Amino acid sequence: MWTEEKIIEYLKENLKKERFDHSLSVRDTAIKLAKIYGEDVEKAKMAALMHDCAKCISDEEMINISEKYGHNIDEVSRNAPNILHGHVGAYIAKYTMGISDENILNAIAYHTTGRKNMSLLEKIYIADYIEPLRDFPGVDEMRRIAYYENLDKALMLSFNNTIKYIVDRNQLLHNDTIEARNYMLYTR
Amino acid sequence: MWTEEKIIEYLKENLKKERFDHSLSVRDTAIKLAKIYGEDVEKAKMAALMHDCAKCISDEEMINISEKYGHNIDEVSRNAPNILHGHVGAYIAKYTMGISDENILNAIAYHTTGRKNMSLLEKIYIADYIEPLRDFPGVDEMRRIAYYENLDKALMLSFNNTIKYIVDRNQLLHNDTIEARNYMLYTR
Repeated sequence: MWTEEKIIEYLKENLKKERFDHSLSVRDTAIKLAKIYGEDVEKAKMAALMHDCAKCISDEEMINISEKYGHNIDEVSRNAPNILHGHVGAYIAKYTMGISDENILNAIAYHTTGRKNMSLLEKIYIADYIEPLRDFPGVDEMRRIAYYENLDKALMLSFNNTIKYIVDRNQLLHNDTIEARNYMLYTR
Repeated sequence: MWTEEKIIEYLKENLKKERFDHSLSVRDTAIKLAKIYGEDVEKAKMAALMHDCAKCISDEEMINISEKYGHNIDEVSRNAPNILHGHVGAYIAKYTMGISDENILNAIAYHTTGRKNMSLLEKIYIADYIEPLRDFPGVDEMRRIAYYENLDKALMLSFNNTIKYIVDRNQLLHNDTIEARNYMLYTR
């Protein structure tokens, strides 16, 4: 299993500067959230650090890697391959970086779309939205809720924001996001 | 097969006044749209007239009728049974009113959620949104697009509006709506 230093080295080489800075910022935010909600800090740190490791891979390569590892590429992902960067990131974490913890791998795999019945570690993906470098209308309110109120409420807000953002831009909606949000509604 | 008069009599007895007036208004709007887009006027009229015939049925009865006819009740519908009123309406149209035309039955069944690869008759369900009694922000623009520009564009707008409306009210999103919208995006 790669050390944190080796992973950071990989990210520096494979991500654009802005994305690299974002990754470190998500790592720091995930550590804070893990402490607040009682999740394993080391796992949260590692998942957050690696979450975007596949972000800068081309669409063609995204499809190639997914097929190589037998990933079921749904119609939405086929039409918008960057949505696969979570799953491809998890394959890189597993087969290149030697991460075997399924919870960490799932947190990476589903950070883009979410999915129904997410683990606490997966929910800490909210760090991706509220890390200090993020700036969008309502981000401070989302930070307040995530840090001081309720992780599920912050997550629900992030799903709602994401769906409306995608709708306004006429982009494709992934079924995993819809299921993640519906699941939270009928289990609350 | 029931006559238009007999169907209207049924609606008068089984719908609230406002819903009854809406049904006649959707009928008139669907006739206009059928003429514009070259759809069978009689079919459009009948589908529109019957589209909400199950709207005022209780949640419990909605589930009972669905189960009676072997309808696959998904998790979202189980949690929000009124979403089944399209499918239950189609069963009433088929087994009570004697409608056998599959296109009409599908137009009734899917008017609430939409679905991928809708027929022209199914798309005329937009009449449900733009009939003259409807009043919501943007309805005049949606009317203009439906009557004078492009039926698919109006439909896309209605999906986007519906999704944002549902998100803002913390209600469940049905997968058929998401698939309907995604399908329009990657076949445009």
